Amino acid sequence: MKLSLLNNRGGMAALVALRSRRRVRFISSATTMKWEGGVSMVQGASRGIGLEFVKQLLEKNEKGHVVATCRNPNGATGLLDLKSILSIPNVIQPETTLNKVEKSSLILAYEINAVGPILVMKHMWPLLKAGGRSGTERDVAVVANLSARVGSIGDNRLGGWHSYRSSKAALNQLTKTASVEFARKKDRIICILLHPGTVDTDLSRPFQNNVPEGKLFTKEFSVEKLLNIINNTSSHDNGKFFAWDGQEIPW
Amino acid sequence: MKLSLLNNRGGMAALVALRSRRRVRFISSATTMKWEGGVSMVQGASRGIGLEFVKQLLEKNEKGHVVATCRNPNGATGLLDLKSILSIPNVIQPETTLNKVEKSSLILAYEINAVGPILVMKHMWPLLKAGGRSGTERDVAVVANLSARVGSIGDNRLGGWHSYRSSKAALNQLTKTASVEFARKKDRIICILLHPGTVDTDLSRPFQNNVPEGKLFTKEFSVEKLLNIINNTSSHDNGKFFAWDGQEIPW
Repeated sequence: MKLSLLNNRGGMAALVALRSRRRVRFISSATTMKWEGGVSMVQGASRGIGLEFVKQLLEKNEKGHVVATCRNPNGATGLLDLKSILSIPNVIQPETTLNKVEKSSLILAYEINAVGPILVMKHMWPLLKAGGRSGTERDVAVVANLSARVGSIGDNRLGGWHSYRSSKAALNQLTKTASVEFARKKDRIICILLHPGTVDTDLSRPFQNNVPEGKLFTKEFSVEKLLNIINNTSSHDNGKFFAWDGQEIPW
Repeated sequence: MKLSLLNNRGGMAALVALRSRRRVRFISSATTMKWEGGVSMVQGASRGIGLEFVKQLLEKNEKGHVVATCRNPNGATGLLDLKSILSIPNVIQPETTLNKVEKSSLILAYEINAVGPILVMKHMWPLLKAGGRSGTERDVAVVANLSARVGSIGDNRLGGWHSYRSSKAALNQLTKTASVEFARKKDRIICILLHPGTVDTDLSRPFQNNVPEGKLFTKEFSVEKLLNIINNTSSHDNGKFFAWDGQEIPW
């Protein structure tokens, strides 16, 4: 499977970069998937779950092409050691109480987790519509946005993490809204939202203390589960929110 | 009931203005309510539903005090003729398609509909906790945030209005998150989210064409219904989302 790296400094940048992309080619082991070929785009691929998605797609879909985006491709190797979007020291820390909620954190989380993905969907829409399924054995293109169970309002029992929760609820709403339009226009595009579970990444490291035994997943395990869901998605699933184990999550 | 007008140019401004507020006193007709006295704060009160809330609170709660906030109190009379937050000509128009989604509209709607209210809750928290129920016959303070049915992800069947829907889903999540913390800390504060129905205001005027017969409410009717819900709120309702008729709305 071929790999392209894109700059993704906000949604617009992804489109601009698409015109001047450089290609990096991989030939990797061939565990075939239900669908093969086509183009997979991974937004936020420099490390963690995104990077693992790229890795497994390259391994399992020999005929396909992966477009991997990140906000700073020049620093993509170094990004593995950086702190995360979820917790950027001195910029974002998940709030433990309403008293710590600030406008700057609310806006930054919203920009990264909600605005970025919906703008990428907006600009990728023509490609998804025209050729999102071409070169594969399936009849639809799939947009799989990584949400999180903490974005669920109905499942919010612990509170805290205001900025992050709010941004993911917004992502859920924006993705659902797009899915309604795609269905109404009979575009062959399916949108789903995914919860990866708690995965052992740089992002989650500060928050792993309370994870029950057996519930802290490796990236490899989580991404394999999520790819399995993506792999088996049908039009019936459009606009839905699934956990790593295929269970639907309430809004 | 007494009335105070506050500047509410963003959440922080509300707190600043609180220190230098000027009072306008009203003595009005006395349709008594289940609870009387205390302080009611209405955020966004220059016109429409907010203004009607102020009016009915003044009329129905003779012993109480209303704190009314708006972003531009100097222009509060003129605001009645201005276009709305929901539709600010050349600034925000509800999107009819994903193609029209822009970062600026997403952020502006989020700032106004989600960031503003949660920051006001943050800064009013000490007052709500200490004295939110004092001077009334009820044992809790109530935060009633005006959401909208279009903020519901589960009930999103028509799509469109991306920025507005996203901001209201975020408000729902932020309000729910605060409600969990208030309950855990045993603060005597209840948070609810309200859908006013489609109300005949400047805001809704451009979108009234498709409203079914009998479903376009007057401000007076809607606010009376919403005040009735607020009036009868108990701790059982904390963190829930109600329509004007008391029906719970899915997230």
